[in-house]
This record gives sequence, C-alpha cells and structure tokens, in this order.
Amino acid sequence: MNAHNNNPEMYIPTYDDVLAAHERIKPYIHRTPVLTSNFMNELTGADLYFKCENFQKAGAFKVRGASNAVFGLTEEQAEKGVASHSSGNHALSLSYAAGRRGISATVVMPKTAPDAKKAAVRGYGGTVLECEPSTAAREAMLEEVVANTGADFVHPYNDHRVIAGQGTCSKELHEDVGPLDAVVAPIGGGGMISGTCLTMSAISPDTKIYAAEPEQADDVYRSFHAGHIIEDDAPQTVADGLKVSMRPRTWHFVSNYVTDVLLASEQEIIDAMYLTWQRMKIVIEPSCAVPLATIIKNKEVFAGKRVGVVLTGGNVDLKKLPWMNA
Amino acid sequence: MNAHNNNPEMYIPTYDDVLAAHERIKPYIHRTPVLTSNFMNELTGADLYFKCENFQKAGAFKVRGASNAVFGLTEEQAEKGVASHSSGNHALSLSYAAGRRGISATVVMPKTAPDAKKAAVRGYGGTVLECEPSTAAREAMLEEVVANTGADFVHPYNDHRVIAGQGTCSKELHEDVGPLDAVVAPIGGGGMISGTCLTMSAISPDTKIYAAEPEQADDVYRSFHAGHIIEDDAPQTVADGLKVSMRPRTWHFVSNYVTDVLLASEQEIIDAMYLTWQRMKIVIEPSCAVPLATIIKNKEVFAGKRVGVVLTGGNVDLKKLPWMNA
Repeated sequence: MNAHNNNPEMYIPTYDDVLAAHERIKPYIHRTPVLTSNFMNELTGADLYFKCENFQKAGAFKVRGASNAVFGLTEEQAEKGVASHSSGNHALSLSYAAGRRGISATVVMPKTAPDAKKAAVRGYGGTVLECEPSTAAREAMLEEVVANTGADFVHPYNDHRVIAGQGTCSKELHEDVGPLDAVVAPIGGGGMISGTCLTMSAISPDTKIYAAEPEQADDVYRSFHAGHIIEDDAPQTVADGLKVSMRPRTWHFVSNYVTDVLLASEQEIIDAMYLTWQRMKIVIEPSCAVPLATIIKNKEVFAGKRVGVVLTGGNVDLKKLPWMNA
Repeated sequence: MNAHNNNPEMYIPTYDDVLAAHERIKPYIHRTPVLTSNFMNELTGADLYFKCENFQKAGAFKVRGASNAVFGLTEEQAEKGVASHSSGNHALSLSYAAGRRGISATVVMPKTAPDAKKAAVRGYGGTVLECEPSTAAREAMLEEVVANTGADFVHPYNDHRVIAGQGTCSKELHEDVGPLDAVVAPIGGGGMISGTCLTMSAISPDTKIYAAEPEQADDVYRSFHAGHIIEDDAPQTVADGLKVSMRPRTWHFVSNYVTDVLLASEQEIIDAMYLTWQRMKIVIEPSCAVPLATIIKNKEVFAGKRVGVVLTGGNVDLKKLPWMNA
C-alpha cells in the first residue's frame, strides 16, 4: 500500500509533536504498565507485551489525545471550552482533560448511548447534549454548539493533536520493552493506529504495524485493499469502540505505514476477551480483544516474534458481558 | 488480645524462615505489582496500596506457601509427592508447585467443587480425588492417601512452611512502598494473615494488622473476642475462600498480633468487588474484596493512613458473577 497525502491543507503530525505531547500530558495521564503472560505466550508461540491502557485515566488510551488537545490550547481558546461528539471513550476522556484544566467540555452523545457513559461524562464535569443516533444528527448538533460557544472542536481521531497524543502510547511501550518485531492495535477510526505508525516509523521503522478489526466492521480491511476510504454503514459488532470509519488524517497513516489489516469474528473476539479476563485477571473491553483474537488466528505471522499488543481500554458494562448471551 | 502458644510441639516460623522462603520460591512466583487508585483514595480518605496477588501464578497468593513447602522437601521426601485437601486456590497452587518440581500432587476435593477448579488442578498435572463435601470425609480420604503413598501433607494454612511462604507477600509490599500504617487482608483459615503478622512484626512492628471477614463467616471475629478458637459450622458466604476455620498455628498469630477483626456484609463485599473491577479494571475474587469493603465501612479507622490491601486472588467463575444475581 502506498497511498499518499494529497491534501496540502491537512497538517500531518510529526514525531516532534509526539515528544511535545508527551511532555504536555505527563501530569494528567498514567504511565501504564506492560504485562506479560506465560499462558498467552505458550498459546500463541509469540512473546507478547500487553500495553495496559485499560488502566489509563478515564479507562482508555483516548485520554492521551484529548489531553494533548486540551492542554495545548491558548488561554483565550481555552476560555471558550472544547466540544466533540462521541458515544464512548473520547467523550469521557475529553471531559476528564477539560475538568483537569478547569474549562468546559460539551459532548454530543446519541440518546441511545448507555446511561453509565453519560453519567461518567457528567461525573468529570462535562455537559451532555443528546441527539438522534445518526451521524448527520450528531454533526449538526455539534456545529450548532461550536457556532454558539466558540468551543474548540476536538475530533475523536481526525485531529493532528489527538494523533500525536495517541503516539505517546507506543513511545512508552518501546521505552519499556525495547525494539519490537510488530505492534498490533485495534482499529476503528484509526487514531491509535495512526499514533502508533507515527511513533514507530520514527523510532523503530522495522517494527511492523498490524491493524486488528472485527469482520463485521471491516471498512478498514476493504479500504486497505481498495486503496481509498470505504465507509461502513452502521456496522454491528460487539467491539463497540470500532464502529466508526477512517478520515483523511488516519487514512494517511494506515495507507502509508500499516503492514496488514487482520480480521476476527464476533465469537473469536469474545473468546479472546474471556481468555484475557480469565488468565490475565484484567478487565478489557471487547474492542481491545480484537488484536489477541487476530494473533491467535494468525499464529504463523507472529510465532517467534516480539509483539506489542495495545489493550486500548477497560470501559465495559460489567452487568452485560458478551459471554453471558452465548 | 494476648493469647500465647502453649503447645511446645508446634513450631512457629520466624522471619528467618520468611527470608529463606523468599529465596527458595523466587524462581516460581511472580513479584506482583502494587497498584494505587486515586478513585479509591478519594472514596476512603486513605492512601491505599493494593498488592495484586490476583496476578500471581495460579491466580492466588497460595502459590507462595505451597511452593515453599514443595521446594523445601528433601529429594527422598519429594519422590513420594505431596497431598492436601482443598476446594480452591491451595489445590491449584500445590499442583502448580509440584508440577514445577516434577513431583506428584494429589488433592482431595469435594465432589461439589466447580469442574473448572478440578480441571485446572489436572491442567497443572495434579491428581484429583473426589470425596463427599464434609470435613470428616476429606480428612479421612487424605489420611488414606498419605498412608498409601507416603506423600507429604501440605495443609492449606496450618503449616509453618506455608505460613512462612505467605509472609513473603507483605515483605515485597513493604520493600516496594515503604512503611505502612496498616495492612488489611482477608481471613479464612488465617494463612495470609499469619504470614503478614510474622513479617510485619519483624520488619515494621508499628504497622497494624487488620483481618477482614464476612459477617456470615465470622468465626475469627468471635474467636478473637472469646480468646479461643471457635469454629464455624458450614458458613454460607459469597467469599468462598473464607469459609474454613483457624487452626493452632494461625490462631497463634491472630491472637498475638492482629489489631482488630472487621466484618462486612454480603452486599458490601459484592459492592466492593464490583467497584474494584469497574474502577481499577482488575479481576478479583469475592474473598479479596472483603478488605476494601471493611475499609469503606470503617473510614474513621483508616483516614489519612497509608494502608496496604492484600488482593489475595483472581480465580472467579466469569459466567457466574455475584452481581448478576442481584
């Protein structure tokens, strides 16, 4: 794959932006641990290094990008607050970061989003505006918020500040465990994968980057093979963080740096999630079980290799676990 | 409380035994991490340090004592194997340790024990003998095993080697976080609490030790206030690791060194377990949610203090979580 960025107006962040982001956000994020598991290594034949962003502030890696955006604002901009649309971890993360800076955050959320998520956003001091559950509705309402308040729009992933922030995750991983043969991360809109590509291409260019995606939300897989962005139309998958589609900034990284896109079925994702809880004793959300599912499914790709696995988050409804429905 | 050991034949381990145990078992155990949580600190007003034995080999601290017993055997003893009775983590731990040494382990388990636990014992290479679910039945069958095989009986807690092994847990905790005002650990038969008393009385005698117990299995609470061992008659509690009663060696430590025994109701235990999963993103079993439940309930005892909390294990049936029945 060798697509290129043809839009001169689209700023593509550099590794210097990642370095600056890391200094900026350090006081507000955890340096999350890297776990290993003999069981998982024996199962897969690879040496796996799990970067535990499920232990991150607000329960997900998204707080890295959100904090970088929020703490990079000038005082003047900051006074007007920040805004975004999200039904998930970006909403929590942006509210958390804004709360730490003491500025307002407004998040447009579909009225179908779980009450627990809305309550968590409010718990961090954010304001929730409910909209109809469609992309058009959420974008229209967000535009209105920005027009009325002058708030800075922090897109969940198509934002250079957010991508640079997410790039701090694989920087820490590399610092803690040394050079890796591969890193596998889940892909939805592509923020984490883009940050990973950005960092690894600068500090460890031999490390291959694999994007792990649900079969039932395989827009990245199809885009990757078509050579242009293909959007999914409301995919249904247990990996609820991976339903969104790429945008130009993340497509830039995916098309230029990703080695392959690997798919996993719903059952494979649930099995990998269950296995992680059972054997590693950590709570991860379905989205971040997709990498392990693809590693188990493609053992020949990873056997004998040192492989980083990004566990992106741990925000899950403990009363509705996917294996309860099986 | 100031009861004393009046049995001259009962060897009480010393801190030198803990030091020897630590050297002996280091190759076979994890040095588990200590986690902190701003959320839990704000909730309780204390600085809590969670020692994560749920990440331990075989999923529980019990592997420390079991490994110390197994790897302390002479070659001649080892050839005859080890045996015990247990429906839970001691069974897994003894099988694990015996497997690592390459000797046989026979565990008498009540036929009502979960199939998953039996399968796990067999997975480590242990032999499971099923008995009727009564103390008399399990002790009779174990006696027969020992008589027939000459196997070394490793009691789950009333064994000086086991207590010295469990003492390595608070040694690591002290090394990693420095002096603590208090340590809270769950109590069933008293192995972990005894090891904690043994270590802390030697290296940090000002640290207070609290035993946390389910209200519905409050034999230690009643023993502590009566001044002698009172046994529970088949208590029913969600904290399935804490149903057994103390024995002379553990009563020695409880009666001499424990500051207080704190109780928690079933609902308080379930709530503390849920909160730990939800906010700390780690899988813990009900037994080790009891300390947090008692800290939340007795804030005045711990506020402003540096408190170690032993998370004893993470072996739980993920398909039968206690809040699913609520």
